[in-house]
Amino acid sequence: MSGWLAIAGLGPGDAGLVTPEVSSALAAATDVVGYIPYVARVAPRPGLSLHPSDNRVELERATEALRMAAAGRRVVVVSSGDPGVFAMASAVFEALEGHPEWQGLEIRVLPGITAMLAAAAAAGAPLGHDFCAINLSDNLKPFETVLRRVRLAAEADFAMAFYNPRSRARPGQFGQVLAALRAVCEPARLIVFARAVATPEQQIRVRPLSEATEEMADMRTVVIVGSSRTRQVGRFTYSPRSA
Amino acid sequence: MSGWLAIAGLGPGDAGLVTPEVSSALAAATDVVGYIPYVARVAPRPGLSLHPSDNRVELERATEALRMAAAGRRVVVVSSGDPGVFAMASAVFEALEGHPEWQGLEIRVLPGITAMLAAAAAAGAPLGHDFCAINLSDNLKPFETVLRRVRLAAEADFAMAFYNPRSRARPGQFGQVLAALRAVCEPARLIVFARAVATPEQQIRVRPLSEATEEMADMRTVVIVGSSRTRQVGRFTYSPRSA
Repeated sequence: MSGWLAIAGLGPGDAGLVTPEVSSALAAATDVVGYIPYVARVAPRPGLSLHPSDNRVELERATEALRMAAAGRRVVVVSSGDPGVFAMASAVFEALEGHPEWQGLEIRVLPGITAMLAAAAAAGAPLGHDFCAINLSDNLKPFETVLRRVRLAAEADFAMAFYNPRSRARPGQFGQVLAALRAVCEPARLIVFARAVATPEQQIRVRPLSEATEEMADMRTVVIVGSSRTRQVGRFTYSPRSA
Repeated sequence: MSGWLAIAGLGPGDAGLVTPEVSSALAAATDVVGYIPYVARVAPRPGLSLHPSDNRVELERATEALRMAAAGRRVVVVSSGDPGVFAMASAVFEALEGHPEWQGLEIRVLPGITAMLAAAAAAGAPLGHDFCAINLSDNLKPFETVLRRVRLAAEADFAMAFYNPRSRARPGQFGQVLAALRAVCEPARLIVFARAVATPEQQIRVRPLSEATEEMADMRTVVIVGSSRTRQVGRFTYSPRSA
């Protein structure tokens, strides 16, 4: 039997958000590769080898997954959310660039519910008009690029979803992002802090920009910044379609 | 039994991309409300009333769905893709603003695979770094706002996903968007035209900006514009993580 590689999104947490396509790929797999907490979400079964690995080894993990597929294994690389949004799909294609001998392999990307969509749904519909998604981590780009994009996005009046807003390694940068927003946006601008979405610990907090503080975000939080028209109705936060 | 309203995303087309959460809501529903082609994707069964309606009556449809839920029905409003991305969730909250008596209703938004995620997955990972989503339709905002956002997004070096790029009512506007891109981006910038994603008619075409023409898009197309670093490896188009 010939091998293949699927790069699959497990969604943000809840099993009800895993697509049937991804479940089928996992059921047909011989090997599952990914970051430790994501591999832990795949149920063990006879005939399935689990290969959890640490954070920040994405390229090595991708190369190993391709190597296994080339050797005839049926390999699923798992990401949280969607594999194409700040996740493993790009890492696999980067690894593939260095290995032309693997470019004929059967490789599929299986989309998933990315965190911002689940966060937006839990809050209402804050991404209901033009929006952008920005990874605030400076692991792979200068932090000045992050700030520049935030400023231009505010100028364009996009709603914004921030991934990886804050970590222990860079506790102060999110404060700089809030300051950049304050320079452009009105104090009443609505900010959604969605922590641990689609898990039992889910917590949704909505604050005006004037009351938002950097401590409201951590690595499990997706932050959604409303557009100038985003507003609240009852317990929901949403962006009207006409914006 | 008390009524509820779920605003659910059916994904872009394939049944393998409908989440179990959405399938469960449909199985528990008494009424399904939505645009004709989306309601047509829900299997009829005894006890389920289907309420298809025409395009451009989103507010009326939302109000009717809320009214049925208030009357004790279990109502699912269906959208293609994700209900919070250029779809019905915002329309429901707009309708709710005019009816404070319904704000205590049980209302849930159930996320779905939005078209750009399925399009990106089919092409590779062109949204693998910071990106934005812009609805090119001028039904609900001035077209000058669209062009301004495209220019600022290019300046920010976002990858971009365009929804509703072109229709018979406005055949020439997409040409203006391409012209706006050409004013900022290099001729080799990669553009993905993803038509009818996750359906049997799916077609993925990738062209450099210099060869992109407005005829390559229609209302069933999602257009993804790469960032300055988006490139091809074999048959895949992807944006590296470091951008």
